[in-house]
Amino acid sequence: MTETRYGLQVKLPIPFEQALEKATTALKAEGFGVLTSIDVKQTLKQKLDQDFRRYVILGACNPPLAHKALSTDLEVGLLLPCNVVVYEDSPQTSVVTAVAPIAMLGAAGGAANLEEVAREADTRLRRMLVSLEG
Amino acid sequence: MTETRYGLQVKLPIPFEQALEKATTALKAEGFGVLTSIDVKQTLKQKLDQDFRRYVILGACNPPLAHKALSTDLEVGLLLPCNVVVYEDSPQTSVVTAVAPIAMLGAAGGAANLEEVAREADTRLRRMLVSLEG
Repeated sequence: MTETRYGLQVKLPIPFEQALEKATTALKAEGFGVLTSIDVKQTLKQKLDQDFRRYVILGACNPPLAHKALSTDLEVGLLLPCNVVVYEDSPQTSVVTAVAPIAMLGAAGGAANLEEVAREADTRLRRMLVSLEG
Repeated sequence: MTETRYGLQVKLPIPFEQALEKATTALKAEGFGVLTSIDVKQTLKQKLDQDFRRYVILGACNPPLAHKALSTDLEVGLLLPCNVVVYEDSPQTSVVTAVAPIAMLGAAGGAANLEEVAREADTRLRRMLVSLEG
């Protein structure tokens, strides 16, 4: 797993569809349901007639953590759900990147009262990505 | 319009349903379609049997801006779509908050190559919120 500027990333030696399925299963194992799914390739084709690689943005939500966060800071919905991006790197390799909640907390002005819940989400998303590499 | 730590916010003297409808229309006027909609109240009730205020997270996307951003930085999907939160403040007042793209860019390590597109999104979201106050 590598850390990007604002994400946590793994590169997997499997095709896109398989990566998407594995990521969804791994998220579930950490208590994250997929609430939203945006097919970026399809959207850009449909709206702009532009070709783009296979690229999906999943909106992942761990309900107890979301509830704790929202009860602490009503505005935190701006940062929810946690985005997990899956894209095709080559026909046989895919990339899965999760937003790094600790980095996002920085964007939120480092709200101290959200630190515990951000740390918990961060730990779970890291574990999820490591499990994909296994 | 007021600026929160990582958002742009207006408080409107109208009920929740009306605010949600007005926000959706105002987003459209600035070229943002609503790609996703999360009913937080319903989700927390369903998953945790917890009561929460009426609260919706809209995922708003301006396709030309999204395409430009993704073509500049493949990882920017972690910050897309732009979240717009609408919640009930009282039966007759509602709050609409849009993520502040310039602040989010800070979370993205201030990626200079994304500055232009973030500024454009920021301008449009501010104009959208101001129009709600009108």
